[in-house]
Amino acid sequence: MKKYIVFGFLLIFCVCNAGIAPGQLSKSDDTYMIRHTVVFKLIHPKDSPEEKVFLDAIKKLSAIPGVQKFELLKQTSKKNNYDYGLSMEFGSPKAYEDYNQHPDHIMFVQTYWIKEVRDFLEIDFEPLK
Amino acid sequence: MKKYIVFGFLLIFCVCNAGIAPGQLSKSDDTYMIRHTVVFKLIHPKDSPEEKVFLDAIKKLSAIPGVQKFELLKQTSKKNNYDYGLSMEFGSPKAYEDYNQHPDHIMFVQTYWIKEVRDFLEIDFEPLK
Repeated sequence: MKKYIVFGFLLIFCVCNAGIAPGQLSKSDDTYMIRHTVVFKLIHPKDSPEEKVFLDAIKKLSAIPGVQKFELLKQTSKKNNYDYGLSMEFGSPKAYEDYNQHPDHIMFVQTYWIKEVRDFLEIDFEPLK
Repeated sequence: MKKYIVFGFLLIFCVCNAGIAPGQLSKSDDTYMIRHTVVFKLIHPKDSPEEKVFLDAIKKLSAIPGVQKFELLKQTSKKNNYDYGLSMEFGSPKAYEDYNQHPDHIMFVQTYWIKEVRDFLEIDFEPLK
């Protein structure tokens, strides 16, 4: 029995170390990863019902195919004027492009983004070779 | 034997799902996490020896106590003028403050950052409650 327990723990160790470390973009040559981030400020007062409707709507972007590691975050540095951040990753340039062209993304931009965002900045990251 | 193998796989499944998903900031109430990011543009030409010296120096910030999930990244969006990004996480406001005050960080800022960075923006993220 002991050897199966040892085998089990060895297997756990191997599986848990085989993946990419949390928060790290893949750096291997055979994979591609882009982290798309946007920081933004809304026209709505903080904690207003309108703000909540917008934030609930933006969360639904996470369901668009190809979106990985979706995060809606609070921006807390006093060295810029943005209040929120969005971060997601894509496994290929095509997945990123498909997201941009997805009807749900276009609908969100037209219905909410262009009307309710006061200021924003898009920043994309890829692994440094 | 079969039951030990099944047990092993169950254990792997549990262990691998117990942690925080890669790239996700902790959202539990008993933990604090801040992701400190900086996007920047250097005064040096791309792929120059001076650029390499700067990037090698900046990587050493990862050794400062409290720094987690350190990443030096390429900024690839054409919608801003920055070339690189730095991302790291801290487990407490004190860890972030200690990093800012650490002699190695102060030395890096004085020796490299204020002389060789043309433009930059600091953005910090915390989980949205």
